[in-house]
Amino acid sequence: MVLCTASLEDRVPDHRVGRGGWLTAEYQMAPGSTGRRSARESARGRVQGRTQEIQRLIGRSLRAALPLNHLPEVTLTIDCEVLQADGGTRTASITGGWVALALAVETLRAQGRWTAPTRLRGISAVSAGVVDGEPRVDLPYAEDVRADVDGNFVRADCGGWIEVQATAEDGVLPRYHLDALLALSGGALDHIWALQQQALGPAWCARWLTGDAG
Amino acid sequence: MVLCTASLEDRVPDHRVGRGGWLTAEYQMAPGSTGRRSARESARGRVQGRTQEIQRLIGRSLRAALPLNHLPEVTLTIDCEVLQADGGTRTASITGGWVALALAVETLRAQGRWTAPTRLRGISAVSAGVVDGEPRVDLPYAEDVRADVDGNFVRADCGGWIEVQATAEDGVLPRYHLDALLALSGGALDHIWALQQQALGPAWCARWLTGDAG
Amino acid sequence: MVLCTASLEDRVPDHRVGRGGWLTAEYQMAPGSTGRRSARESARGRVQGRTQEIQRLIGRSLRAALPLNHLPEVTLTIDCEVLQADGGTRTASITGGWVALALAVETLRAQGRWTAPTRLRGISAVSAGVVDGEPRVDLPYAEDVRADVDGNFVRADCGGWIEVQATAEDGVLPRYHLDALLALSGGALDHIWALQQQALGPAWCARWLTGDAG
Amino acid sequence: MVLCTASLEDRVPDHRVGRGGWLTAEYQMAPGSTGRRSARESARGRVQGRTQEIQRLIGRSLRAALPLNHLPEVTLTIDCEVLQADGGTRTASITGGWVALALAVETLRAQGRWTAPTRLRGISAVSAGVVDGEPRVDLPYAEDVRADVDGNFVRADCGGWIEVQATAEDGVLPRYHLDALLALSGGALDHIWALQQQALGPAWCARWLTGDAG
Amino acid sequence: MVLCTASLEDRVPDHRVGRGGWLTAEYQMAPGSTGRRSARESARGRVQGRTQEIQRLIGRSLRAALPLNHLPEVTLTIDCEVLQADGGTRTASITGGWVALALAVETLRAQGRWTAPTRLRGISAVSAGVVDGEPRVDLPYAEDVRADVDGNFVRADCGGWIEVQATAEDGVLPRYHLDALLALSGGALDHIWALQQQALGPAWCARWLTGDAG
Amino acid sequence: MVLCTASLEDRVPDHRVGRGGWLTAEYQMAPGSTGRRSARESARGRVQGRTQEIQRLIGRSLRAALPLNHLPEVTLTIDCEVLQADGGTRTASITGGWVALALAVETLRAQGRWTAPTRLRGISAVSAGVVDGEPRVDLPYAEDVRADVDGNFVRADCGGWIEVQATAEDGVLPRYHLDALLALSGGALDHIWALQQQALGPAWCARWLTGDAG
Repeated sequence: MVLCTASLEDRVPDHRVGRGGWLTAEYQMAPGSTGRRSARESARGRVQGRTQEIQRLIGRSLRAALPLNHLPEVTLTIDCEVLQADGGTRTASITGGWVALALAVETLRAQGRWTAPTRLRGISAVSAGVVDGEPRVDLPYAEDVRADVDGNFVRADCGGWIEVQATAEDGVLPRYHLDALLALSGGALDHIWALQQQALGPAWCARWLTGDAG
Repeated sequence: MVLCTASLEDRVPDHRVGRGGWLTAEYQMAPGSTGRRSARESARGRVQGRTQEIQRLIGRSLRAALPLNHLPEVTLTIDCEVLQADGGTRTASITGGWVALALAVETLRAQGRWTAPTRLRGISAVSAGVVDGEPRVDLPYAEDVRADVDGNFVRADCGGWIEVQATAEDGVLPRYHLDALLALSGGALDHIWALQQQALGPAWCARWLTGDAG
Repeated sequence: MVLCTASLEDRVPDHRVGRGGWLTAEYQMAPGSTGRRSARESARGRVQGRTQEIQRLIGRSLRAALPLNHLPEVTLTIDCEVLQADGGTRTASITGGWVALALAVETLRAQGRWTAPTRLRGISAVSAGVVDGEPRVDLPYAEDVRADVDGNFVRADCGGWIEVQATAEDGVLPRYHLDALLALSGGALDHIWALQQQALGPAWCARWLTGDAG
Repeated sequence: MVLCTASLEDRVPDHRVGRGGWLTAEYQMAPGSTGRRSARESARGRVQGRTQEIQRLIGRSLRAALPLNHLPEVTLTIDCEVLQADGGTRTASITGGWVALALAVETLRAQGRWTAPTRLRGISAVSAGVVDGEPRVDLPYAEDVRADVDGNFVRADCGGWIEVQATAEDGVLPRYHLDALLALSGGALDHIWALQQQALGPAWCARWLTGDAG
Repeated sequence: MVLCTASLEDRVPDHRVGRGGWLTAEYQMAPGSTGRRSARESARGRVQGRTQEIQRLIGRSLRAALPLNHLPEVTLTIDCEVLQADGGTRTASITGGWVALALAVETLRAQGRWTAPTRLRGISAVSAGVVDGEPRVDLPYAEDVRADVDGNFVRADCGGWIEVQATAEDGVLPRYHLDALLALSGGALDHIWALQQQALGPAWCARWLTGDAG
Repeated sequence: MVLCTASLEDRVPDHRVGRGGWLTAEYQMAPGSTGRRSARESARGRVQGRTQEIQRLIGRSLRAALPLNHLPEVTLTIDCEVLQADGGTRTASITGGWVALALAVETLRAQGRWTAPTRLRGISAVSAGVVDGEPRVDLPYAEDVRADVDGNFVRADCGGWIEVQATAEDGVLPRYHLDALLALSGGALDHIWALQQQALGPAWCARWLTGDAG
């Protein structure tokens, strides 16, 4: 269970001034979200490497949804608070973060500030891995820790990949397993993309299809 | 809306070794919980003064619920994640944190580790203030920012106070206003204490009254 | 023994630009001020929760002395260095910090920059608590650590309260003890306020009474 | 130009006690390694997200070289100092770090502490991307910044993948481009693996083939 | 004006375990000690380079007073709080810190834990510099900022140097100026050493001369 | 072995605005540069006292090479990366850093921005100490750790001293040893200065002598 919010701020980081908008993401696991309490990062005084890696992935994936150069000078911040964790929280954050982003874009449209020539690109993500020699998608935590291969697959609504990541945790990843993970993820992402559209409702989808919703 | 969890760890901080258990609290506002996004404390690398002040108040208030010296050497951590904020989040955290604590004590009892001679003390909290010269309880954010006096009142189930805090934000706090705030808070806390018991359910309450639930 | 200084800087924090002046306070215990040396906060790289809580209380209390909106865009910083500690250092800091503030206001007046329609409000503070069932004021450290109730009382020269704080450390705080603490503190604060005026000298007091000293 | 060193310490992090050895990696760009000086991370007081992401990738990739559970309780730290940067520094660090690791394993063997039933797995890495619609390997910085797709490919000596990462920076990554990047990287990695063996010299290679060099 | 305290703790840092005692020093300027308020280091979250350099010099100089290897496993911490600054605070800290140290050694003797075969070595320090071409000692701040050469001279009671430091701030330091600074400092240090003995009193001095005071 | 680079940035720190250029130095030991790996400072989140002390010495010494007030508003940053350490790294950094600085000044000249009326002052540095009662220069690490006296000597090409630092690590430093260290360092510095000129080449030296190379 991941709470995703989008916030809009009327300024951009230095490296984007004069070049359009920006999108950034932050991710945090609530200390009580896991079976064994994890220390709060603010109390440690530093953001862990795992968190940094994850929020960079979320930001990169969601920036692919937007023609940043055609946006006004705003920063969209997608916050992903993991309230209950059971595997695949980074891909759930991308999937849920995109829904929050779609709603934020509505605000920009309503304000007449979305002048991009294209619509918002749909982005969905899923985790996948090889457990006991068998490729699977959306691994729960118990399977994830003993997976031989662990991956994250992010796809656009057109079917093209945004990010493909697969890591051999134990042994190596042969080509046929990579192909299987890509195929399995593809099927799961069709389903997830349908759920994202359902969450936004038929009116939003209709507007989106006709180019009126981002 | 505040998500409160209790976690149990089988060790205590250095200053409690050999002296029983310990309870500590952490509080955090999700960046998206307020109208205008607030920076994440882990990203800043330090916990703000306001947060520190609040988590010290929550910890102090909930430690009053427990005979720490009769507990085994465990640390109970109460995490309060503010998901949506509209005034009074620190007192809501105490109130909700106490419910999480009551549930955690059940675990200790079930493990035969709660050997305290007394039952868990009930703790409830409410904010109160003076707005436009009129004393009120549970101020929403819009009233809180323009209040002349701002206060937090924490009470035990026996009716004795655990913490009384009142600050004149503008002008001074005359004695009759302090008396009015204490009276108003007392009424509100009767109601809040009833809601806390309701949340735990009649079975828990029955066990608690007969000394079997902490 | 607390060394209090006031410093004046010709700028305000962002949230005060265009809205007048600002006052902030910092508090620090010298590592050698206590029986057992405490670690220096700069060496730890972070300000502890207790320090944050205290400097927020000092700042809040001393801001009540000033009509901030009528000040020029200056920041007054009150630094409180605890050189020897024996209980009640936070209220001693408020009391001494106010004297430093009164002297700083003289500088503003001399520069013709104090144009507030009212004079500086007198602020005094005292600690109080219940020890062995008996309410007392200005507890030394040895009594403070075994007090059942611990409190801080900040009052304006007109007799209205600025901050009332009382915490039950052991057991609860019944209403009659709160009343006793308020009464006892009131008496002690009459004496402290006389000492503060004495520290500033009769000439300052005469100017202050006629509205010429802040 | 990346300076890679391996250091051996006779202890492991807490999560590995009783479970064998551990390998970790650190990566740092010297401030003067790029055309425009970058701030030193120690001066900022925090390790950037990019650095964290990179050192996690290096560590993960090189851990795949070793049967950690069969090692004694030692920590191998691979330090990668980027002295001159021109694209692909993370994959160069993996490639060079592996050579440092192979030399460190010699020390463990010489001390009779390498009792693993298998030999050290060879690990090589290369960056690849799509520039102007054309898949390429080992992009220099000038091409990297304008690439549509950016990827990192890590492979074991047996030909199985250790990590496959591809990100669409602009547009999407169609399947045929992913296939092309995998094919191109494979060819480049054959060459890189030969260079790594050459760096270690024929004597090491002979010992390695017969199972006497890790 | 520098407040110097010595604290004794019954443990030593890791690198001294089994090798005797240790001495360390900390130095801090109170924010209000200078004409223009300086930011508090705990608030910045880091100790500045200047402070680090100074506390290393104080620690190094005072460690020369003690036969550390003959001490029990205690750490002596010398804290130097600069309350009012007007040039030469680092050498004043060494001079005053030595007096605090001498008093702390009395405690060790009284406890029968000072078993060193030699007495405490006397340590005195003075600043010196070249202003307008003229060598001088103990420069006030106004002269210090425009000095061509700035130096710190630390000497033992036997007349041997503990630390000689001279820096050309503007131009170079010719040999004859270095000789002049050494000569001038020597004279000033005779006087300072007399003041240190005077501060400890004739009884202490008598005991020290006969080897009974450290 | 120390890698020294100079970087030029078109802005100065606040305290130099309107007053010419600035030069600052940073120093870092690569974790693998010593026999036993040292922790990376960026990972610790703070720069150690020793590093701060060293980079202040390097900066101070190299600022003496330049008429900062006659430079344009640029900041020259000298980065010194210690790749292999064996004693005297701080003086090697000054010596090598000066060569990097000389090359950077060429860039300023080529851009017509070096309008200083004097040429770049030559700066050389060497470590020296007393080992087993015998004064020596350029101590390797093994001698440095058992030296009775440890010093750093920085000299200008005219023969005047820029910095003289000598510390008694064990016992005291008698005047005749200081004299011996100054004499020995002087001889070594003649040789080092020749090597620095050789590194820059005869063409540079010729231009420098005639005032055309800084």
